[in-house]
Amino acid sequence: MRILNQRRTLILFVIAAVYAFYGLAFASDGDGGGHGGPVLSILIELIVILLAAKLGGDIFERFSQPAVLGELVFGMIIGNLHMFGIDFFEPFKHNITLEVLAELGVIILLFEVGLESSVKEMMKVGLTSFMVAILGVVAPFFLGWGVGAWFLPAESIYVHIFIGATLTATSVGITARVLKDLGKIQTREAKIILGAAVIDDILGLVILAVVAGIITAVNSGIGDGISSGAVLLIILKAVLFMVGAIVIGSMVVPYYFRMAFRLRGKGVFLSFALLVCFLLSYIAGLIGLAPIIGAFAAGLILEEVHFTKFRERGEHSIHELIAPIAIFLVPIFFVRMGMLVDLATFARVEILGFAAVMTIAAIAGKQACSLAIFDRATNRMAIGLGMIPRGEVGLIFAGIGAKLILDGHPVVSSSTYSAVVIMVMITTLVTPPFLKWSLLREEKKKEIAAAKA
Amino acid sequence: MRILNQRRTLILFVIAAVYAFYGLAFASDGDGGGHGGPVLSILIELIVILLAAKLGGDIFERFSQPAVLGELVFGMIIGNLHMFGIDFFEPFKHNITLEVLAELGVIILLFEVGLESSVKEMMKVGLTSFMVAILGVVAPFFLGWGVGAWFLPAESIYVHIFIGATLTATSVGITARVLKDLGKIQTREAKIILGAAVIDDILGLVILAVVAGIITAVNSGIGDGISSGAVLLIILKAVLFMVGAIVIGSMVVPYYFRMAFRLRGKGVFLSFALLVCFLLSYIAGLIGLAPIIGAFAAGLILEEVHFTKFRERGEHSIHELIAPIAIFLVPIFFVRMGMLVDLATFARVEILGFAAVMTIAAIAGKQACSLAIFDRATNRMAIGLGMIPRGEVGLIFAGIGAKLILDGHPVVSSSTYSAVVIMVMITTLVTPPFLKWSLLREEKKKEIAAAKA
Repeated sequence: MRILNQRRTLILFVIAAVYAFYGLAFASDGDGGGHGGPVLSILIELIVILLAAKLGGDIFERFSQPAVLGELVFGMIIGNLHMFGIDFFEPFKHNITLEVLAELGVIILLFEVGLESSVKEMMKVGLTSFMVAILGVVAPFFLGWGVGAWFLPAESIYVHIFIGATLTATSVGITARVLKDLGKIQTREAKIILGAAVIDDILGLVILAVVAGIITAVNSGIGDGISSGAVLLIILKAVLFMVGAIVIGSMVVPYYFRMAFRLRGKGVFLSFALLVCFLLSYIAGLIGLAPIIGAFAAGLILEEVHFTKFRERGEHSIHELIAPIAIFLVPIFFVRMGMLVDLATFARVEILGFAAVMTIAAIAGKQACSLAIFDRATNRMAIGLGMIPRGEVGLIFAGIGAKLILDGHPVVSSSTYSAVVIMVMITTLVTPPFLKWSLLREEKKKEIAAAKA
Repeated sequence: MRILNQRRTLILFVIAAVYAFYGLAFASDGDGGGHGGPVLSILIELIVILLAAKLGGDIFERFSQPAVLGELVFGMIIGNLHMFGIDFFEPFKHNITLEVLAELGVIILLFEVGLESSVKEMMKVGLTSFMVAILGVVAPFFLGWGVGAWFLPAESIYVHIFIGATLTATSVGITARVLKDLGKIQTREAKIILGAAVIDDILGLVILAVVAGIITAVNSGIGDGISSGAVLLIILKAVLFMVGAIVIGSMVVPYYFRMAFRLRGKGVFLSFALLVCFLLSYIAGLIGLAPIIGAFAAGLILEEVHFTKFRERGEHSIHELIAPIAIFLVPIFFVRMGMLVDLATFARVEILGFAAVMTIAAIAGKQACSLAIFDRATNRMAIGLGMIPRGEVGLIFAGIGAKLILDGHPVVSSSTYSAVVIMVMITTLVTPPFLKWSLLREEKKKEIAAAKA
């Protein structure tokens, strides 16, 4: 009976597949109909990505790996099928709409993560986060500098400094996702990492301005470098944003939702919550911070207590309302991130050594973060591991370096750029399994200790 | 106390506004930070649109008008502020990502609407829907032909036929939204209209192919026009799609969700429901139908009974999962549709007469639909009113006509095109209040009759 059923399933799936191909076969003459265009491209991309995300997530969860790693790996496979002559998925990489949907996905993810914390809870770990962020910037910076000096001895000191700077900024999306999937957002470790990521982003901004400023100044023959006033302005803007978002935000939000409550029509509650998220993401982006930092801040300042009236009216909780949007959008970010991994880079043997050492420096450097943890109850190792991922920020740094010209050639050469890309890929791929392992090991330890006591 | 509170609210809002502008003020030097780009554009556009949708919806609901009309009108205001020198919102109209999000919004809307019906229920009204669709195509076609002949006597008969064809296709988004907002999707009237819209879309495709084929043939000197084989192929593809989607879909779906149920990871249920929606939308688009027709078919074939296992596991219902995505995306479609209304068109006095008569023909023509209703219990008038809106299909027709050359000048001249645009605007704007009035009047009538009996 069971077998019969599976056979019937198979037959029906074959029919469905034939049917789908019947649709595809008409693709060439579909233009005449008048509908279609960019919507059709995004529909097929969403179909492929959602399917890859769910199948990848399923397989990796069966092997006790985080679902996000499955999304990354399946994305990587799809993104590299062109090596085998399958070019169908190539346009996915260049579709701006898909890129924007992916970015909205990670914004929604950080908003969700922020919602699970409060400003008060973050304040408690504030100093620790600050120390973690500082160590997590200083150590990789000098390690990167050293690696640069070792592999590129002929280059000037400014090139080495730039490579160091490229290794500093943590990309918190991956870590946030792993913490969320494991239900660990409420832990002290998670709060320290998230707080440090916010501070890290601000520090990254400052470092970029300083290093790029110095190189531009050196290049133009002015010995002065970047003015300390300009650096102060950057710090001021970033700090003002975070403090402003939290202080003014916390004050305004209750009145804001009281006003929203008076509005008629459907979906007011969710829309007004999304508005806070989008507004703070937007402002963060405007002043040069990552939009996800704004989304996280938005999540922090929204508390259940603001929603009491909506909840009394019988509306769903904000978590229940955001979750479906996250289910739709978040995998787009991770599958797309996987797709952008170009495996051909790994074939460039001449840079593999440089890339390997840079990756080791990037990973080892962030382990210095654990030195900021004095508290024995906190899982130090998880914090060091959670800070590993370098994402788009590292790539942006390298991209800017590739455009900066020093002594007639770019500060970041094409082979250095490739090495940075490899470093970003590996730090992204190793974090989920390492972090999961460390968090679950600690959990087991505590259980054993509890059983003994 | 109350006043004090409101004053405090006001002060806090001023602070928030200043803060927001502080952000905006940094916009010019935000480039250096490295983040941003297309994501920031979409964020500000989403902020404006969500706010306009909720405020517009609120105000119109207070005046007992459908929320969707508020979204359209507020969109229209935003889209025409450039007349007063405010150019800030102009880029919104040309952002492809926003266009795609809007299209995804209307796809999700029709999927939601389809979920509230079943194939069986649609079959019951099948014949009536077919008659409604036929009358709703034939009457406006000949009325439009007449209007063309009257206003453009110097033009050839083919131009008049083309104008008639432009008036045929119903755009069901607006009507579906009004029916949904009033909780009337389950009514017989709603099912007839939705069924007719599906058939209408197929007929529109056929008419377009025939008329454009004839003109191309006349133009190239071949008297033969379009071959009946080509027309048959179009009909075959469309009918095969609908029958295939419903028959094969209904067979495959139970096995599909049984397979999905075995997958690990979060969000499998919603993702696999969305996959059905996106896949059928995509195939519909490929064969030249509106993607929303595919989305509607997807909603039709998904039934609660397929989800029993997921529901037993404690997952939310499909309606609860889709609703937040709809709250986020659907208003984008309607506000954007309002934004694209160019009020300057109405200032072209020389075409206003033509546009007015064409609009009357478009509205009056669809009232013929009510002749297909023999059943006294059905609200005939609501069906005629629900079929009024002409949307993107009319514009696509006109756009194709503008590109077709006959006797050395385009079949659809720029003034005819403007008249079509005005017709589309007015039919879109008048439908929500008319339809709401008719549906609620009938409801009251029935209540009074019930009270008397």
